Amino acid sequence: MPGHEPLTLIEKVRPERMIKRLDQLSQIGQTIRGGVTRLAFTQEDRLARALAIDWLHQAGLEVRTSPIGNIFGRLGSPEPDLPVVMTGSHIDTVIDGGRFDGALGVVAAIEVAHVLKENGVSLSRPLEVACFVMEESSRFSTGYAFGSKVMTGQPIDDETLLAQDRTGQTLAEAIHAMRRRELGMEQALKPGDSIETARTYIRGSRYPPERIQAFIELHVEQGPILHTLGKPIGAVTAIAAPTRLAVILSGQQNHSGTTPMRLRKDALAAAAEAILAVERICRSSEGVVGTVGRAEVAPNVVNVIPGEVRMVIDVRSVSAGAKAGVAEAIRAEIGRIANDREVAYQLDTITNETPQPLSDKIVSLVEKNCQALGIECHRLASGAGHDAAQLAQVVADTGMIFVPSRDGISHDPQEWTDERDILTGAQILLLTLLDLTRQ
Amino acid sequence: MPGHEPLTLIEKVRPERMIKRLDQLSQIGQTIRGGVTRLAFTQEDRLARALAIDWLHQAGLEVRTSPIGNIFGRLGSPEPDLPVVMTGSHIDTVIDGGRFDGALGVVAAIEVAHVLKENGVSLSRPLEVACFVMEESSRFSTGYAFGSKVMTGQPIDDETLLAQDRTGQTLAEAIHAMRRRELGMEQALKPGDSIETARTYIRGSRYPPERIQAFIELHVEQGPILHTLGKPIGAVTAIAAPTRLAVILSGQQNHSGTTPMRLRKDALAAAAEAILAVERICRSSEGVVGTVGRAEVAPNVVNVIPGEVRMVIDVRSVSAGAKAGVAEAIRAEIGRIANDREVAYQLDTITNETPQPLSDKIVSLVEKNCQALGIECHRLASGAGHDAAQLAQVVADTGMIFVPSRDGISHDPQEWTDERDILTGAQILLLTLLDLTRQ
Repeated sequence: MPGHEPLTLIEKVRPERMIKRLDQLSQIGQTIRGGVTRLAFTQEDRLARALAIDWLHQAGLEVRTSPIGNIFGRLGSPEPDLPVVMTGSHIDTVIDGGRFDGALGVVAAIEVAHVLKENGVSLSRPLEVACFVMEESSRFSTGYAFGSKVMTGQPIDDETLLAQDRTGQTLAEAIHAMRRRELGMEQALKPGDSIETARTYIRGSRYPPERIQAFIELHVEQGPILHTLGKPIGAVTAIAAPTRLAVILSGQQNHSGTTPMRLRKDALAAAAEAILAVERICRSSEGVVGTVGRAEVAPNVVNVIPGEVRMVIDVRSVSAGAKAGVAEAIRAEIGRIANDREVAYQLDTITNETPQPLSDKIVSLVEKNCQALGIECHRLASGAGHDAAQLAQVVADTGMIFVPSRDGISHDPQEWTDERDILTGAQILLLTLLDLTRQ
Repeated sequence: MPGHEPLTLIEKVRPERMIKRLDQLSQIGQTIRGGVTRLAFTQEDRLARALAIDWLHQAGLEVRTSPIGNIFGRLGSPEPDLPVVMTGSHIDTVIDGGRFDGALGVVAAIEVAHVLKENGVSLSRPLEVACFVMEESSRFSTGYAFGSKVMTGQPIDDETLLAQDRTGQTLAEAIHAMRRRELGMEQALKPGDSIETARTYIRGSRYPPERIQAFIELHVEQGPILHTLGKPIGAVTAIAAPTRLAVILSGQQNHSGTTPMRLRKDALAAAAEAILAVERICRSSEGVVGTVGRAEVAPNVVNVIPGEVRMVIDVRSVSAGAKAGVAEAIRAEIGRIANDREVAYQLDTITNETPQPLSDKIVSLVEKNCQALGIECHRLASGAGHDAAQLAQVVADTGMIFVPSRDGISHDPQEWTDERDILTGAQILLLTLLDLTRQ
């Protein structure tokens, strides 16, 4: 790279261009609370994707999209046949989410490619910027990281393709409709067409993993660790995965005024004990978090002793063993509580995903580059799932770089990352990508 | 009462007539679960009221209705100017309630009057059978014991009259519409007419309390005490009243995977501690029950730490002092929990009713009559509210007789009372009414 010392090159990264683009994206689907609702395959998503494609063209990249909607921008190399180094993230959002989740990784990837292109940097292998479709599961309540799962060839079952949004449209129909629009086909869909077509598009969207040398995703932490420690960069060692337990506690619904305390089988009191047991067990288990995020009481009437509570327990860890141990302890404790209180219970494991370790090599490169810039770097695990967790299953050198989330807040209009941290994140991304293209 | 020894007269009570009438009533508003939904002032309520009026006529009573819809059937006496002895209950129901709650007290009252009339018993003072309108608060979520409150001259505020049902109709409009239908007025209502008209009807529905010598209500226990003890009759010593505390716990909504356990402000974990505190405090307080019947979690999403929980605590006792002490202990404990967990809270007393002692004299008469029949009687307090609680505020000799509820279940299609207990309840009611007419 004659004339382009990496530490000179990173001075060319333009934070104001990234901020402006994040701002533009945040206006597509802006909510009254100041957040963003840009659900996958909606009109807002299409507008945002069109904008991303425009930016990839502005950066001088060669753009292509897969049939299900993953977008790739390619920066060539004198060695065009070598496996690529890839970077990117997603631009769909949750309901009333923030402007950085996903979007930052796409905008920073485009910025880095733009700098490399406009400064005529000659790469040892091609670089690709990826914008994955539907990372969030908010629209269809299923299919998290759909785009990166499809790309890496993971099986997609019919249940996922037939999952409906609030209007009754299925994921298969949404995919089909978007593709038809892109191809300028305006005729009405025939019912039943979509699932077969979606399957065809899915097959056509697979990216041969051997063509990818390495993958890095820059993302906001979405947790409080970097913010609390005051460190600008996180080198991500692993991505935690959830085990989810659906619990139904069934007591005896009864009049709140006429039933003596000792004759009650109160499902909500049993649930309260279970919620505190989850908290207690997870507090005493290193590297595990556990949450009861959802609980519904029936009949939920002021003067009736609750007859039933349904809740979901979410347990996460980067250690599959620790997670299984905690899930087992929770299961046993709920059994004991139900037995003591003479309430019936049902407990089903509805999700049990495998934690994904990330590339040690990339962690070391990120640490080395932070050292070169004189900034602090903190090793940490990701509690949230990411597209990188899918890539890591087929590409050994997959890594993530985190930048701080103010107060650890995410999936909320209050989500915030400072401009200074955005610039640092993009610079570390640039340096690490350069390292990887050389390998 | 020549030729009519009370113990001979009670042989004339016809259980099959009561069972048939309870069955007829249960068919008006029958639900697919086998329960009854007969909300006040609906078409079902009007049909049931018409049926009750018909039965009062069959019993040979003189029937009148008050403008808001309370029904009275009068059995005269050689002393027509003496204050009356009154008995009765209500025939409206909760949503998917049982066939005995309220209805039994009306059907048994009519049966007793019928027996007295057809056997030509000469009473020392008039007897009146009352069928109160809207005892349940289910339709408008307010205004419990509306009919008996109006009759006894308690103030009814505009908030109650303007409370809406699920369709948006107000209580005032419902009263107005029913009365117009009874009077054969078919023109459409003008908006705004109803509240003034309702006030006029309310004023016209007051019953001078000095005209009532005594009141007894026969009712199913709606709790498990008599069933558990195997005793057929309860002599009710007092009616408990609720204090209700509305609690909002506000923590910090956050991602369930990215927030370490020690940095959480989980509103649901705080609520769980509060729910168990309510249970613990009430278990250790004699004569007090406490329930969290209603709790709502926000945002109630599997992978988000709950940011807010809203719940209502219902505390009941027949001792105002014990109830206040428990409410105070709960308030203090929630303050401590919120403080320890660094979550914000708001706690409002939304209801604070006064427990109502009932007539010792009637308790003694019920016990004496049980002894005469050789059956067991148990003194107990009513945890639920009743029309009798309203009457007791203006008529010193107000009492209640309870019969067992199978497994203590009420406000549910499973509500059940055996025919044998219904007969016993009506017989004890007859004997006690005879005692009271003589005083």
